[in-house]
Amino acid sequence: MSAILIRGGTVVNGDRSVRADVLCDGGVVRAVGEGLTAPAGAEVVDAGGQLVMPGGIDPHTHMQLPFMGTVTMDDFFTGTAAGLAGGTTTIIDFVMPGARQRPLEAYRTWREWAEKSAADYAFHVAITWWGDAVHEDMGTLVREEGVTSFKHFMAYKNAIMADDETLVRSFRRALELGAMPTVHAENGELVFLLQQEMLVREISGPEGHPLSRPPAVEGEATNRAIAIAGVLNVPVYVVHVSCAESLEAIARARAAGQRVYGEALAGHLVVDDSAYRSPDFATAAAHVMSPPFRPKEHQEALWRGLQAGHLQTTATDHCTFCAGQKAVGRGDFTKIPNGCGGVEERMAVIWDAGVNTGRLTPNEFVRVTSTNAAQLFNLYPRKGLVAPGADADLVVWDPEGTKTLSVKTQFSKGDFNVFEGRTVRGVPTHTVSGGRVVFARGDLRAERGAGRYLKRPAFNAVTEALGRAASRRAPVAVKR
Amino acid sequence: MSAILIRGGTVVNGDRSVRADVLCDGGVVRAVGEGLTAPAGAEVVDAGGQLVMPGGIDPHTHMQLPFMGTVTMDDFFTGTAAGLAGGTTTIIDFVMPGARQRPLEAYRTWREWAEKSAADYAFHVAITWWGDAVHEDMGTLVREEGVTSFKHFMAYKNAIMADDETLVRSFRRALELGAMPTVHAENGELVFLLQQEMLVREISGPEGHPLSRPPAVEGEATNRAIAIAGVLNVPVYVVHVSCAESLEAIARARAAGQRVYGEALAGHLVVDDSAYRSPDFATAAAHVMSPPFRPKEHQEALWRGLQAGHLQTTATDHCTFCAGQKAVGRGDFTKIPNGCGGVEERMAVIWDAGVNTGRLTPNEFVRVTSTNAAQLFNLYPRKGLVAPGADADLVVWDPEGTKTLSVKTQFSKGDFNVFEGRTVRGVPTHTVSGGRVVFARGDLRAERGAGRYLKRPAFNAVTEALGRAASRRAPVAVKR
Amino acid sequence: MSAILIRGGTVVNGDRSVRADVLCDGGVVRAVGEGLTAPAGAEVVDAGGQLVMPGGIDPHTHMQLPFMGTVTMDDFFTGTAAGLAGGTTTIIDFVMPGARQRPLEAYRTWREWAEKSAADYAFHVAITWWGDAVHEDMGTLVREEGVTSFKHFMAYKNAIMADDETLVRSFRRALELGAMPTVHAENGELVFLLQQEMLVREISGPEGHPLSRPPAVEGEATNRAIAIAGVLNVPVYVVHVSCAESLEAIARARAAGQRVYGEALAGHLVVDDSAYRSPDFATAAAHVMSPPFRPKEHQEALWRGLQAGHLQTTATDHCTFCAGQKAVGRGDFTKIPNGCGGVEERMAVIWDAGVNTGRLTPNEFVRVTSTNAAQLFNLYPRKGLVAPGADADLVVWDPEGTKTLSVKTQFSKGDFNVFEGRTVRGVPTHTVSGGRVVFARGDLRAERGAGRYLKRPAFNAVTEALGRAASRRAPVAVKR
Amino acid sequence: MSAILIRGGTVVNGDRSVRADVLCDGGVVRAVGEGLTAPAGAEVVDAGGQLVMPGGIDPHTHMQLPFMGTVTMDDFFTGTAAGLAGGTTTIIDFVMPGARQRPLEAYRTWREWAEKSAADYAFHVAITWWGDAVHEDMGTLVREEGVTSFKHFMAYKNAIMADDETLVRSFRRALELGAMPTVHAENGELVFLLQQEMLVREISGPEGHPLSRPPAVEGEATNRAIAIAGVLNVPVYVVHVSCAESLEAIARARAAGQRVYGEALAGHLVVDDSAYRSPDFATAAAHVMSPPFRPKEHQEALWRGLQAGHLQTTATDHCTFCAGQKAVGRGDFTKIPNGCGGVEERMAVIWDAGVNTGRLTPNEFVRVTSTNAAQLFNLYPRKGLVAPGADADLVVWDPEGTKTLSVKTQFSKGDFNVFEGRTVRGVPTHTVSGGRVVFARGDLRAERGAGRYLKRPAFNAVTEALGRAASRRAPVAVKR
Repeated sequence: MSAILIRGGTVVNGDRSVRADVLCDGGVVRAVGEGLTAPAGAEVVDAGGQLVMPGGIDPHTHMQLPFMGTVTMDDFFTGTAAGLAGGTTTIIDFVMPGARQRPLEAYRTWREWAEKSAADYAFHVAITWWGDAVHEDMGTLVREEGVTSFKHFMAYKNAIMADDETLVRSFRRALELGAMPTVHAENGELVFLLQQEMLVREISGPEGHPLSRPPAVEGEATNRAIAIAGVLNVPVYVVHVSCAESLEAIARARAAGQRVYGEALAGHLVVDDSAYRSPDFATAAAHVMSPPFRPKEHQEALWRGLQAGHLQTTATDHCTFCAGQKAVGRGDFTKIPNGCGGVEERMAVIWDAGVNTGRLTPNEFVRVTSTNAAQLFNLYPRKGLVAPGADADLVVWDPEGTKTLSVKTQFSKGDFNVFEGRTVRGVPTHTVSGGRVVFARGDLRAERGAGRYLKRPAFNAVTEALGRAASRRAPVAVKR
Repeated sequence: MSAILIRGGTVVNGDRSVRADVLCDGGVVRAVGEGLTAPAGAEVVDAGGQLVMPGGIDPHTHMQLPFMGTVTMDDFFTGTAAGLAGGTTTIIDFVMPGARQRPLEAYRTWREWAEKSAADYAFHVAITWWGDAVHEDMGTLVREEGVTSFKHFMAYKNAIMADDETLVRSFRRALELGAMPTVHAENGELVFLLQQEMLVREISGPEGHPLSRPPAVEGEATNRAIAIAGVLNVPVYVVHVSCAESLEAIARARAAGQRVYGEALAGHLVVDDSAYRSPDFATAAAHVMSPPFRPKEHQEALWRGLQAGHLQTTATDHCTFCAGQKAVGRGDFTKIPNGCGGVEERMAVIWDAGVNTGRLTPNEFVRVTSTNAAQLFNLYPRKGLVAPGADADLVVWDPEGTKTLSVKTQFSKGDFNVFEGRTVRGVPTHTVSGGRVVFARGDLRAERGAGRYLKRPAFNAVTEALGRAASRRAPVAVKR
Repeated sequence: MSAILIRGGTVVNGDRSVRADVLCDGGVVRAVGEGLTAPAGAEVVDAGGQLVMPGGIDPHTHMQLPFMGTVTMDDFFTGTAAGLAGGTTTIIDFVMPGARQRPLEAYRTWREWAEKSAADYAFHVAITWWGDAVHEDMGTLVREEGVTSFKHFMAYKNAIMADDETLVRSFRRALELGAMPTVHAENGELVFLLQQEMLVREISGPEGHPLSRPPAVEGEATNRAIAIAGVLNVPVYVVHVSCAESLEAIARARAAGQRVYGEALAGHLVVDDSAYRSPDFATAAAHVMSPPFRPKEHQEALWRGLQAGHLQTTATDHCTFCAGQKAVGRGDFTKIPNGCGGVEERMAVIWDAGVNTGRLTPNEFVRVTSTNAAQLFNLYPRKGLVAPGADADLVVWDPEGTKTLSVKTQFSKGDFNVFEGRTVRGVPTHTVSGGRVVFARGDLRAERGAGRYLKRPAFNAVTEALGRAASRRAPVAVKR
Repeated sequence: MSAILIRGGTVVNGDRSVRADVLCDGGVVRAVGEGLTAPAGAEVVDAGGQLVMPGGIDPHTHMQLPFMGTVTMDDFFTGTAAGLAGGTTTIIDFVMPGARQRPLEAYRTWREWAEKSAADYAFHVAITWWGDAVHEDMGTLVREEGVTSFKHFMAYKNAIMADDETLVRSFRRALELGAMPTVHAENGELVFLLQQEMLVREISGPEGHPLSRPPAVEGEATNRAIAIAGVLNVPVYVVHVSCAESLEAIARARAAGQRVYGEALAGHLVVDDSAYRSPDFATAAAHVMSPPFRPKEHQEALWRGLQAGHLQTTATDHCTFCAGQKAVGRGDFTKIPNGCGGVEERMAVIWDAGVNTGRLTPNEFVRVTSTNAAQLFNLYPRKGLVAPGADADLVVWDPEGTKTLSVKTQFSKGDFNVFEGRTVRGVPTHTVSGGRVVFARGDLRAERGAGRYLKRPAFNAVTEALGRAASRRAPVAVKR
């Protein structure tokens, strides 16, 4: 691996922007400064007029997810490669244990599948049931495997839904392990009833999907997860916040000093729910994901959430199914496999709709696409920062470059692009991953298996502060 | 039954106050006006300088509640009689079906027990599990028995707790029947875990009770019940709102136009949580009820809720256990039977702390002690109003009279009074119930069995409006 | 004046609906009950299938308002007559003192002008400057003239704008007099700057009007007026609340227990701001009023405000100018006389958009069109109620009758109708005013001068309660 | 000036903590890393077990403020020296033009006075009136003098109060200059009236001070300033946020995506209002500052504001008067000179009450005491960061060291300490300012005149983003 000198750009970190060259060697950043000289044999990237930013982190993907005897279109190689083409150099994917499967066993399966990744990756593990074995595996995962975040699905009744007992037990366990609980927040009982009612009313097409998952269903579950976390004194991270109701629950808790975090998906930020009423089944079905796309006013709300700092991260929930897979739900929307893509487009979509419009500064862009995720999930400052010692995961960004997003030109597998036809201004010209230039002006050089698994430590400054706060407030018995 | 002429007072209704005499005959009010003449044989009550108000309605009592082989201290006779002494002429009590007992069967038992009542009464029926039989019994209760409100306990895991599925199904059923769902809002899973943790920490006395039921636990459940009701388009009534968190959930929903109602208990309005830390076990245990008494700032919040109209009713959750019964929980607070009294003191406590302080007008006092409950539970204008045709259920109120509340002077059974030693200004001098003077200047003349069961109709203006709103928004299938 | 028997209808009051006949005689309601018999010579109105409601009260009109040497189209006779045709039997108009004119002097002028009214009327008096004479006149107006509400314009810089000193002094004076301060809430300095900036940008047409008065400008002033009232312990009434920002300020204060009230205009409830961008100047200019019509989401907010009880009244700000008068502002929108009509259409528009849609119950309709205004402005129970003793001001309402609103068929003067072309279901068939049938199935029999001036008492249950609250919290000096 | 090597500590920045040595030379940080070697002649500071943080920035001080013919106790030398003893290495003080004095003239006076400073300093300039000269001077100050923030007092009627016209004009001017408007938010008219009323009630002692400035007075003004800034599209910074009402106004605006910032004073975070009721006049008067100290619940609110990120900075409003100066207001609290100290204690007070209690992480401590102020006022990354190239302004912090704060041991001038008797854990052992060790284990070596004036650039990433947002939304005229 040769050294790389990125010359002439403006380095944009979460806290500031500065004109500087960046020298990488041995997989890490060695120097950031003006007038650096290239070592012999170094590859020189001309970043004149461009920005050099930490590679994106997508903290929410489902690569190679098994589903009904088949799997999502993108596996760990193609999915991470597509991410690199878009400037994303790290993903955090999900281990999804089956019915009463031990989490550790599922984790091992996913680790094996992920070895083909082209970019670095980490895992959240889903807690889908409760028992002593789960309690024990959580400990092993945190202490030995560097899995320090756990996911809880509050929807998908009769499948992976975690009931309140599981939430309460698992959050409590996360507290003692110094891990971060995360939730998919939708009230599964309401969704189940509403799905049944839609079918009874003969609303069986994809338009029934958002009708069975209205914003209030998400807002409720978000509020519940936050209340549980608050009572137990553990931080909580809400994945794919899609609506004002959910955001408001987060904002309320944060205003009360609670350590609550929220993630917005690129799709939810710019795509609205009109697609579900498309007369074309394939188009409508291609948009089926949960939570669903929302009416426009919710998109405005999510942007405000990012501006306010109530939402910290952006992700994609990248989980692609082709038209043939989606067609299983023709005649019954509840059977349409849930999922859309985005890992490749996220950075450009958010730059264009966020920075060009004046909603976000370039530094805030870096925070919400990379730095904050790194900090929340204990990957910082190895990831999420351009500074000596950090991993050489970088994106060189042309703020004036434009591109029209399309399924025809995407690297991701799949036959649909929810951003189809959107022209963005602000695109990656080069991506550096693990010290290698893996994408250069349209040329994707992703390498199967080059990605490394990222072990993440437990505890951080926030969980330590919560511990101090808890000690201060510890209840005492009354002498009688 | 002779006629009664109440002469010289000021009639205070929910909407206005007017100088007028009130003539009752045959159990109903016959006339309200100045200078009425007493028919022959009429009993004349001198109300000079006093107020004549509709008798209080306590929409939340548990008389004669079976518990661990014994029952609460007050049965339907002594309990309703105590209410009459305090100016309350109607109670709505709760039918509590046992584990998987049919609601209708339990209802019949309660009806029998209640025949001894001295004042009129109605019932809410608790839905503690779900099944076809429950679905069917709800229909029978509404259509044939005049039970048009149902109660759901979101706490008391492993006993009467209704899980989300039961809530969703029962609320849905109430919608089609035109009945009002009500909830005891506390997250039962959190309470259960916190109780266990308190015992592990060796906090086994009554001080552990509020620690295992913090406000956030109530706020969460309130928000959840409201979200479910909102999604299903049914009104909802939250019993014993005790804290700011819960009130805020109600206020948020009301601001969004949702039909949500809340009840405050006289105890929660004026008693704080310091009692749980009393060195005297009996005192601390006597205050054990759920939700628990709260720190003082929550009392202020509840008063503001009444002023704002976010809370509509006041009640007591009257449910009295003696020291011997409470002592079962010595060494394990989770075993202390939950409940406190108040049916006799409610009106005076709320007048004193509400009207004398300028928080409420006298008309608002009438609304929150009587009129609003009558309207919400379809007893209006038979109850809750002083007007020709209404039941002759009245209280003559001396705004300058004072009394010191005490277990020593109370009519209620039991050996404790949570308002002990509180001197109130504003007391009933006479109570008229069913056209009879049943309380006169300290003399209680309650008659066993004089009370009547009140059948309540289904549907009202609000549920009809919700139906129109639902029709307007009914989803339609997309043609493909 | 002959007696009137309204037979066979359903009497709808603010608190309940009941099948009953209504007998009026001598200008007042004599009886409400089933099976009443008509006295000899009585006029019988068949109300079968119809509703009998208290006549509407429009608490915000400007009849015969002098403006630039001319006056608004409707004078006190034509304006009140138009109201009667729409079911409105009382107006509260505004006395508008000129620059440094004594309020009492202006009041006398308006009293004279109003003698031609066909329906009963009262006055708010505007406080447009401050000085000892104003202080004194407020006292005279309250104590001798029955003017117990005062208006403050927070906008219209260099004209009638009341600065903070005037607000503070006048609110303080209202407190001691037991009167209600009201505000037109827009930040006049911001409006002034934005108007200038629009003209600089060459946005001189009516589209500049809403751009110079964005919702934040109203929200700010509403919040300020409420804060001042709160600090001084006086209730406050916000006229023509038009936007979510303003409503939220009211809701926040009410949640804190403050006595704050808000009024929505029929126009703001159903008309949006798209008209200002009409290519036709006359159409755009005809919609110029302040606050301006707003984007659609604000209309939804206002309806929720009415549902929640955060807004209590509906009005019109009826103030009509013809196209010729509006044309003065061609080329400079700041010169377009502000004002639109509505006194005739308000009841039907609100019934149709409020009751038919399920947003309001019929009882709530009565409250927001009549009862609440009567209570807030001390006209109750003479107005706002169908009950023996109340004024015989009634409207017989056909909930199934329809009408298409149009300038062509209106009784109001003027050449424009902001509700043009709107078909409403729910219309008045008869209006009774002062014991006379003045409108019957399209036939308007308004009588010039039949209306009476309504003196209103000072103080009410709310101001008395505030006084008790103030006494309780009175500050005391520290002994040193 | 010799080089300094700080060895063995943990460098704590706003984003992370890392074990590293820090090498300073020539007044700047040269290197941050493990195992650095000391150059010849370097002074070595042993930071074993300690933290190395960016020196504190106090963005709100009044040194040497002229008042009634005298001046505050601390001048620019003693005040900045006291700051150095407490770990604060930069202050931003205020230029206060007199009645209709040109801002530029006042600025020149303050620059001269400040030359004696021992630490670096910058200035905000107060805009106390409006006119063309002020408009012009603002331009000169921003473009030539590096003053890029302006202060507006919304209180102090008949003195320096800026009315709404001044606010609107000055904010508008700041927008075009790329400067930050700041406000002292209290409604001056209300304060004036309440002061008069307190004196009328014979409440003339210091207890009248908080009674004349209740939280609602501050909340109103905060909301108004934010609304004006929002309408004009300019960021705004609210100094000394002292109460929940004010914080909530900030949180609401931030939730709506507005760029609003707030500052908390160390005093407001830990001192409550009970002092005003002290029987000792001197004690009570010594606490007179505006806004006043508040009831305890407001302190909790402020901490939550810091945790939530709704408040970004902490300051002191250091402005010390001795007992003799304060005594002028004996008999009339409105004449007591307003002001308290704190520049020396701020860092330790906030560490102790913030970090030790678990409210803040050490990184958050750095942000709220230094980094955020540097970023908001365009001093970053020269200040607010420990990194190569930044100024060598550092504090070495012993998290286990304790100290009891007292007027007896303070370096500040003055005869009172509002933190008297408070024992803090977490104290500075060394302060480095401008590359010199100026404080070492209790030995203060501050040098008169060593401080430099800091010119600050206009515009930053946020104002540029606001500009892009404004372009996107620019209004257009309708073609007619």
